[in-house]
Amino acid sequence: MPTHHSAKDEAALRKLIDDQIAAIAAHDLDGIMRAYAEDVVVFNSLMPYQTTGRGDFRLAWKDCLQYFPDNCKTEMRDYTVAVDGDVGMAHWLWRFTGFQEHHPALITWLRCSQGYRRRNGKWEVIHEHSSVPFDQATGEAQFTNNV
Amino acid sequence: MPTHHSAKDEAALRKLIDDQIAAIAAHDLDGIMRAYAEDVVVFNSLMPYQTTGRGDFRLAWKDCLQYFPDNCKTEMRDYTVAVDGDVGMAHWLWRFTGFQEHHPALITWLRCSQGYRRRNGKWEVIHEHSSVPFDQATGEAQFTNNV
Repeated sequence: MPTHHSAKDEAALRKLIDDQIAAIAAHDLDGIMRAYAEDVVVFNSLMPYQTTGRGDFRLAWKDCLQYFPDNCKTEMRDYTVAVDGDVGMAHWLWRFTGFQEHHPALITWLRCSQGYRRRNGKWEVIHEHSSVPFDQATGEAQFTNNV
Repeated sequence: MPTHHSAKDEAALRKLIDDQIAAIAAHDLDGIMRAYAEDVVVFNSLMPYQTTGRGDFRLAWKDCLQYFPDNCKTEMRDYTVAVDGDVGMAHWLWRFTGFQEHHPALITWLRCSQGYRRRNGKWEVIHEHSSVPFDQATGEAQFTNNV
């Protein structure tokens, strides 16, 4: 049985994620970074292989933002959240949408998972994993806009 | 503050993961599949893009096992578990080790994240995300044995 008002906590985590996805569309670096823990461990879709710490991940996002399409939007689906007590996890698919159809950032859905811990009353992202799969035969990342 | 005997639950999740990684080395399909929930959602390192349900994921593992190196071992590092109440999450890096140095399964570390829910007293894997990153310039998956 869920305990600790987990329906309320699930709503809080959904808002955290929705706010982050909206901040990506707005190119809002502070908004994107708002919920990451100081000691977050990130397995990002792009290199490097792993990133530890909010400072380094902020630099990676800052570098990324310049390559994002203008006037883009973001779209999510297959959104699942589980939470109990002070720990939670979630996963979803998301992509950029927009009118620049040949922009490299618009070619694929991304798979995203996050882990959360509540510290001092605030939910923080302690882990993020973002990726696309690869093809075993060719070694190429498999981009898709059809999931 | 952690509650609900979370040290004991963390030990239970570590055992679940250790048992699974050992089962991979042993080519033990039942052992690999033991903890997956009926409704698990998997973002696997290989295609397809996502797999829903233990039955389909079991077929994917069964197909994979024939390509695994003989007499291999598995190695883990950077292992983190968070748990509270009936929800948990974990992440780690792992790879095959062995003597067949040119075997394709031995070329890289994999990044793995799992989400857990306890149902009827039993911890189940409700989500798994496994991947390597890709290179933005080339679109190629980035395999590495140096993390």
